[in-house]
Amino acid sequence: MIRFGVIGYGYWGPNIARALMEVDAAAVHAIADVSSEALGRAGKRHPSVLLQSDWREVVADPAIDAIVVATPVNHHFEIALAALRAGKHVLVEKPMTADVGQAWRLVEEARRRSRVLMVDHTFVYTGAVQAIHGLIETGHLGDLYYYDSIRVNLGNFQNDVNVIWDLAAHDFAILDFLSSSRPMAISATAAGFLSDRPENMAHLSVYYEDGSMANLNVNWLAPIKVRQVLLGGSRRMVIYDDMETSEKVKVYDRGVTLSDDPEAVQMRRVSYRVGDMWAPVISAKEALLTELEHFCSVIETGAAPMSDGLSGLRVVEMLSAASHSMRLRGQPVEMHELRKAS
Amino acid sequence: MIRFGVIGYGYWGPNIARALMEVDAAAVHAIADVSSEALGRAGKRHPSVLLQSDWREVVADPAIDAIVVATPVNHHFEIALAALRAGKHVLVEKPMTADVGQAWRLVEEARRRSRVLMVDHTFVYTGAVQAIHGLIETGHLGDLYYYDSIRVNLGNFQNDVNVIWDLAAHDFAILDFLSSSRPMAISATAAGFLSDRPENMAHLSVYYEDGSMANLNVNWLAPIKVRQVLLGGSRRMVIYDDMETSEKVKVYDRGVTLSDDPEAVQMRRVSYRVGDMWAPVISAKEALLTELEHFCSVIETGAAPMSDGLSGLRVVEMLSAASHSMRLRGQPVEMHELRKAS
Amino acid sequence: MIRFGVIGYGYWGPNIARALMEVDAAAVHAIADVSSEALGRAGKRHPSVLLQSDWREVVADPAIDAIVVATPVNHHFEIALAALRAGKHVLVEKPMTADVGQAWRLVEEARRRSRVLMVDHTFVYTGAVQAIHGLIETGHLGDLYYYDSIRVNLGNFQNDVNVIWDLAAHDFAILDFLSSSRPMAISATAAGFLSDRPENMAHLSVYYEDGSMANLNVNWLAPIKVRQVLLGGSRRMVIYDDMETSEKVKVYDRGVTLSDDPEAVQMRRVSYRVGDMWAPVISAKEALLTELEHFCSVIETGAAPMSDGLSGLRVVEMLSAASHSMRLRGQPVEMHELRKAS
Amino acid sequence: MIRFGVIGYGYWGPNIARALMEVDAAAVHAIADVSSEALGRAGKRHPSVLLQSDWREVVADPAIDAIVVATPVNHHFEIALAALRAGKHVLVEKPMTADVGQAWRLVEEARRRSRVLMVDHTFVYTGAVQAIHGLIETGHLGDLYYYDSIRVNLGNFQNDVNVIWDLAAHDFAILDFLSSSRPMAISATAAGFLSDRPENMAHLSVYYEDGSMANLNVNWLAPIKVRQVLLGGSRRMVIYDDMETSEKVKVYDRGVTLSDDPEAVQMRRVSYRVGDMWAPVISAKEALLTELEHFCSVIETGAAPMSDGLSGLRVVEMLSAASHSMRLRGQPVEMHELRKAS
Repeated sequence: MIRFGVIGYGYWGPNIARALMEVDAAAVHAIADVSSEALGRAGKRHPSVLLQSDWREVVADPAIDAIVVATPVNHHFEIALAALRAGKHVLVEKPMTADVGQAWRLVEEARRRSRVLMVDHTFVYTGAVQAIHGLIETGHLGDLYYYDSIRVNLGNFQNDVNVIWDLAAHDFAILDFLSSSRPMAISATAAGFLSDRPENMAHLSVYYEDGSMANLNVNWLAPIKVRQVLLGGSRRMVIYDDMETSEKVKVYDRGVTLSDDPEAVQMRRVSYRVGDMWAPVISAKEALLTELEHFCSVIETGAAPMSDGLSGLRVVEMLSAASHSMRLRGQPVEMHELRKAS
Repeated sequence: MIRFGVIGYGYWGPNIARALMEVDAAAVHAIADVSSEALGRAGKRHPSVLLQSDWREVVADPAIDAIVVATPVNHHFEIALAALRAGKHVLVEKPMTADVGQAWRLVEEARRRSRVLMVDHTFVYTGAVQAIHGLIETGHLGDLYYYDSIRVNLGNFQNDVNVIWDLAAHDFAILDFLSSSRPMAISATAAGFLSDRPENMAHLSVYYEDGSMANLNVNWLAPIKVRQVLLGGSRRMVIYDDMETSEKVKVYDRGVTLSDDPEAVQMRRVSYRVGDMWAPVISAKEALLTELEHFCSVIETGAAPMSDGLSGLRVVEMLSAASHSMRLRGQPVEMHELRKAS
Repeated sequence: MIRFGVIGYGYWGPNIARALMEVDAAAVHAIADVSSEALGRAGKRHPSVLLQSDWREVVADPAIDAIVVATPVNHHFEIALAALRAGKHVLVEKPMTADVGQAWRLVEEARRRSRVLMVDHTFVYTGAVQAIHGLIETGHLGDLYYYDSIRVNLGNFQNDVNVIWDLAAHDFAILDFLSSSRPMAISATAAGFLSDRPENMAHLSVYYEDGSMANLNVNWLAPIKVRQVLLGGSRRMVIYDDMETSEKVKVYDRGVTLSDDPEAVQMRRVSYRVGDMWAPVISAKEALLTELEHFCSVIETGAAPMSDGLSGLRVVEMLSAASHSMRLRGQPVEMHELRKAS
Repeated sequence: MIRFGVIGYGYWGPNIARALMEVDAAAVHAIADVSSEALGRAGKRHPSVLLQSDWREVVADPAIDAIVVATPVNHHFEIALAALRAGKHVLVEKPMTADVGQAWRLVEEARRRSRVLMVDHTFVYTGAVQAIHGLIETGHLGDLYYYDSIRVNLGNFQNDVNVIWDLAAHDFAILDFLSSSRPMAISATAAGFLSDRPENMAHLSVYYEDGSMANLNVNWLAPIKVRQVLLGGSRRMVIYDDMETSEKVKVYDRGVTLSDDPEAVQMRRVSYRVGDMWAPVISAKEALLTELEHFCSVIETGAAPMSDGLSGLRVVEMLSAASHSMRLRGQPVEMHELRKAS
């Protein structure tokens, strides 16, 4: 039985704690939060769990094997570092850290201490993203042309980070898992409609080494919640709509070809292939539960987690590049220059 | 009765001819196309109309009062200029011309000859866009924050122009009609997945003088047809989905405010307003029919058309700026520099 | 070239005339309607067609080979009978006649004169219904368990017939085409919410010989237009949504089985099969065009039409049984008793 | 603090227990189930709760104030009766009992003992049904013409009851809450496609005293889950789609009127009113939580519950009438005859 401490019981922490109760290999030993109101809610739901107002008590508790960090981003680094140094395994909410340097230091610390460092890239553990991954790996989509995402809703305006660090982090995590190519440059445009606040709307384009592109549309000020990704491949295309209750992933046997017919080539005619659509069964298991079971499993087996510290680092790199381009009103930022700078 | 010549009977010309048959004030006198196959189809549907393989015959025909130019873009200028010089009123399919200089010359020629020059910005004549225009004019949306559009489908790959000149032209025409502010700069990224062909996917961001933004996602290589616009305003937000059969325009009484409560301000808390949704009745009349009736009406009354030559010119300016930025991988292009250059 | 007379230019007649213009083998020779306003509209659209205010002129016209009857139901019998007697081939809008006796007499007359009698069961000619037919014939659905339809909208209240004769006629036509079993009894309930008018809402259940059932929900007083059919089979299930622009037919690899496991049988446990969904490509060709080409083809070849007079008769039988049960507030009416009575 | 015993921890019991943990006024004292596996799950989630394999222990426990009965229907009566006799307040899952006689006896027992008897008509406590109730009470819908429901899915085949007792119970509960008129007769048709099992598909029509009608389509063997209700009123119409995440209730300002214009009356012309659609904000609070808080509140205040024993009884009456008509293949069963018989 792996004994957990959950640090942060605000928006996401309660989900972590509830899901951990369902994991056979896990027990929730302690929950920490600076807010006594938050601790009150935790106590009503989990009467047998130890409550702490200071996270250092949890990190120092020898009865605890693993820590989940679910605080605002700017506290991730300090808490995760302390936990690794105390010999705990650590799962950090996304984005892993507030900058690239911090991310590197966590990766190093975990390596040195031989502890598991995993980042909570929840979408990677959804049935939908796993299914799309399978479609790519087996060649069903052919060469990946583009990843085109809308991730907008009303709310969760944050004080400390702009919308890129909040919402685009999800897409970057998915892209890091799905794409076998490397991002070369990012162009981002953004706007903020509440004065004196971080940008709440952004559009990002990522240029990949193999010629493919990713385009993200993220917005905290939209009338409805949209979570929709279009993936274009040379053989098939996919629509992944996370708001759908049943068919979240639809695979379209559609595309174009330049005709081989000499006369058509002369005319530069494109022919269209419009075939069937197919929606594979997607596991309905809660992603967070899958992820927490995976975390317990890699702690026990020593295997590498699907969303390890390095993937957390790469996502932070992309977030940094996007934020930089945004300030240049869309001028592309090269990833390798960013890496040199950091 | 205004007698029409329709030049071009490929993709859009047949719709023009069919709709003109329904306009009380109009009669179709002649149809021209270089393809004898196209003329064959025209003859089967309209046995009483004069068929011409050379558009010059139509332009020269003294029985004809007005010309509709529905050919590929690169012929628009030559045909429209000749028609104006022959004293005809002219309606040109969008985009009006292939470059800004041509657009200026058509506007000048029409002014000199006192003929109507109108551009076929069809969406401006839809019940949906007219309804949104009304919502803006009456202040229902408050200040316009953003216009965010997806306009993708499979098909209509063109040889002569990239996807921006085809699909983004619709959004620019709508924006030109809806927005009271002026575009300052455009950032565009794009990719082409068929070698040796114009770009088939693009993402555009337009910076407006008043701080608002427009973002367009256009693509010829998408699994399904999407025509969806989100409009964010300070008072209300709109979803305009042109693929919906019934409620094309939905108005959401939603938004955010920075709290006035001193403690909340201290905490920098945002409060969310989640009110009702409302879908006004939208006229189901075919936009093309409305537009052609409007064209006949301005010919008769001498009033300025809603989509006059100047609006056609402004749309061509935006298309040129976007194409330029696209070649710079998203580096923003200032509209005033473009104007200087042309 | 088959020369047509179209009788009735109200709601459906204009579609017939327009579609006939697209049929290579057909020419529209004359259009008849009692309303001069209707004839005015016909003349504007089809300047070269002969217009008649008396349908008898069309039936008597020796230049005409085939007649389409697109008048209100209560005139179908008289006109179709006269046309057959004049040696014309006849296509009658659905429902074929106002009662079973009339339907029998038209079938007999056509047989005696060796003329084609076809009924305009338009849906039978849609890509969607043809695709479903294929799924059934090839065994993909297994045994057909049920056909469950909603066909509601706002409007088209009729004076002469109730909603069953208008909307359920479509479902009966589709069922006649799809089902290989015979209807045994029909139970129908209905209500009318405008006083002194035919019933505008009805719910029908059809019991088939093989144990399958059809259930129809038809209504002229609904807030939106719905055209949705669920088909349950022992192997797969189908959703056919005619309002969908793209995937009209979705095939679900889902169902239930009683477990063979002895313990499970003891517990009477049902196991559920939840497999993929699949949406075959559906021909987007206009059904009316397909149907009119088919009509021309059977005239030329002498083959039996897919929607022949006998299918028209069977649909009228079902409509009569349903109307009778409706007056008994749902008490089932046996088809064989109805046949005896007529 | 009201101390609860939850009897039955199968499908619905876990939801009850989880929601009770969120109710300030409630504490879960004990959970009972015959299955040790179920108790194991309960213990993992709620380590501090008393687990019992015999419900009689819970009913006899003097520390417990209120009992929730969440067992299969055929045990409801015995357990609820015992609990009332032991002086407990009782909340029974729907349908309240397996027959009308049992329902009467529970109502009587609760009255005699002055205990709260409430039935778990969960939908009554949803924001959506409460909003519709408000629309009816304030006259927004005008006279209610019809209630037309589809409630189908794949699964939850039950051994002890047919689909009417499972799914139609929800609609009857909603109707009992919404309609101010009394049901007079019910016609039901049904079919079962698994041999030797209760019917899994049924269609029901309820005739109300005021001329309105309710029509229900319930099915355990459908490809997807549908929860959709159309309500027709003389002034407005409503679509209530419980599968929608955002706009569950849409109000359409649409309808028909017989024209007052004498000539139109002569022609018996109907005119259609097609106005705006409007989707009021619906409370997103979990209905079960609202319901359990309401149960605690009526225990404390002595007020009558919204879903009291009499509403439970009326729903059981409708279920009995529908099942009876089903066996007569749709022949209508009069409610007053059913009442005489029971």
